[in-house]
Amino acid sequence: MSGTEELLVAGVDVGGTNIEVGLVGDGHEVRARGKVATPDGGPEEVLTAIADLVRSMGAEPAAVGVGIPGVVHDGRVLTVPNLENWHEHVAVDSELADRLGVPVALGNDADVGLLGEWLDGAAKGATNALGVWMGTGIGGGLILDGRPYHGARGAAGELGHVIIRADGALCSCGRRGCVEAYAGRRSMARIASALVEAGRSTSLFDIQQDEGKPRLTSKVWARALDEGDEMAHELIDAAVAGIGLAVGSCLNLLDLELVVIGGGLAEKLGQPLADRIGSATRPWVLQPHPDLQFVVSTLGDDAGVVGAAALARASVIGH
Amino acid sequence: MSGTEELLVAGVDVGGTNIEVGLVGDGHEVRARGKVATPDGGPEEVLTAIADLVRSMGAEPAAVGVGIPGVVHDGRVLTVPNLENWHEHVAVDSELADRLGVPVALGNDADVGLLGEWLDGAAKGATNALGVWMGTGIGGGLILDGRPYHGARGAAGELGHVIIRADGALCSCGRRGCVEAYAGRRSMARIASALVEAGRSTSLFDIQQDEGKPRLTSKVWARALDEGDEMAHELIDAAVAGIGLAVGSCLNLLDLELVVIGGGLAEKLGQPLADRIGSATRPWVLQPHPDLQFVVSTLGDDAGVVGAAALARASVIGH
Repeated sequence: MSGTEELLVAGVDVGGTNIEVGLVGDGHEVRARGKVATPDGGPEEVLTAIADLVRSMGAEPAAVGVGIPGVVHDGRVLTVPNLENWHEHVAVDSELADRLGVPVALGNDADVGLLGEWLDGAAKGATNALGVWMGTGIGGGLILDGRPYHGARGAAGELGHVIIRADGALCSCGRRGCVEAYAGRRSMARIASALVEAGRSTSLFDIQQDEGKPRLTSKVWARALDEGDEMAHELIDAAVAGIGLAVGSCLNLLDLELVVIGGGLAEKLGQPLADRIGSATRPWVLQPHPDLQFVVSTLGDDAGVVGAAALARASVIGH
Repeated sequence: MSGTEELLVAGVDVGGTNIEVGLVGDGHEVRARGKVATPDGGPEEVLTAIADLVRSMGAEPAAVGVGIPGVVHDGRVLTVPNLENWHEHVAVDSELADRLGVPVALGNDADVGLLGEWLDGAAKGATNALGVWMGTGIGGGLILDGRPYHGARGAAGELGHVIIRADGALCSCGRRGCVEAYAGRRSMARIASALVEAGRSTSLFDIQQDEGKPRLTSKVWARALDEGDEMAHELIDAAVAGIGLAVGSCLNLLDLELVVIGGGLAEKLGQPLADRIGSATRPWVLQPHPDLQFVVSTLGDDAGVVGAAALARASVIGH
């Protein structure tokens, strides 16, 4: 369209490890990217980091969309179990809009990631789909009856807090037996540390050091699996089994045709991870959809950024 | 409306214990009722019983709606874990339509029960609601974003097969750890028998005999609770705890504002049962809706019949 200037929107994906930003064009293309480690000092630091990151992109976006790993309602973040020192409700949309001078839309990171995949990725055109985001925590998003589903207050999709074991492991949310307590990267790191303290050996922490990472990142897990580390295999097996059980419950409740696996771990392990989760899920499903598919995210790291930008377009600037 | 004859539709509620029929008027009023024990010889016997029961009502209905405790897709029953000797897919709609000479609509019993409550009962006007039907098995139905949700093939809502314990008790569906294995009346009867064989005592089976019931019906459970039977209290406590956990997972996934408790046990135990399930659920909910309510079915036994008739009106005769 010569003569028509492309409207750029910034999509921001706030993770437990990194904050990523992308300047996204009309057709969901990411024109430029930026990234910074997620600060651990609470909401003020996170808001400043987001604003600095968006400004650092050079071009001024028409709007900003933000996906955040917590329960989001009406532009406010209600709870964020996987960001350090964030204990209060914060109106992220207006706080950021004040700093950046453009409208800001806010969503849950997994909802926003699935929105990206649904508009331009692995869930494109799906009518009934679940997105499972495997990162620091376990996020989830839903497409039901052909549209994103957010629930009564936008708090839907918390697959990570489906309970798989009544008397189970302690979760970062303070409850017991949530699937995130078995399959979230933070929980898996905690279990690995406990096992090492109990005398088990693993190359996980050597690999972490070798890679110069501050924690057991998805890359560290992927390398440990590659190198045949027994504990890494054991913990990933348990994570896959846990996710399979939670997704099985979810399919029995919602009768879906598609499950998209995304997030850091999916980015590193690819379709084989989605296949393994499919195999772990099927035994739990009462009446599996004959065309039920498990696919890995095709947008990868960009899913959150693309989805957040699309959210901003839809809710703030109307296209 | 003088001069306008009311259009009567038959609603049929097929349960693990009884088949109930109602002739239902335009405004969801049940004009006449009938009931027969559910035969245990498989689909042919069940179809004959339904047809005989509908014929026995005297008036010829304009259509028939049927709710059945299984996975229903396109008028076919795919699986029915709680009816005896029913192992094949059966096109209940056309089979019954042939016998009765009127159009027949088919739905899952819990979906249909919640439809009744949503049109004219405890869930009237709800935007995001779960129906939990506590009978022979545990059924579930969903209202999402202001309309009934059935999933990709109409198999959604199977709350009874949300898994609450990875290595848990055997369920009637053949899997392990489903909430129905703890809270379905059939499973509870099996556990009670096993406990008696193991030397525990209970008045449950004496009450059953005294009431002349072929099994531990909801009435038997209610009386045992009333009379302070320890085992009855123990098993109902476990059922409530299990339902609370499953509903908690469901609320974390779907962010609902209302949970309706129905079915035989709810009919006998009333709002206190809904209150207890509310208390058992809340500790599992990540971010409970501030107006979250747990209410007992107001249509009671009529929910399934009213919902089935409404399904027939909507899908077969267009009003």
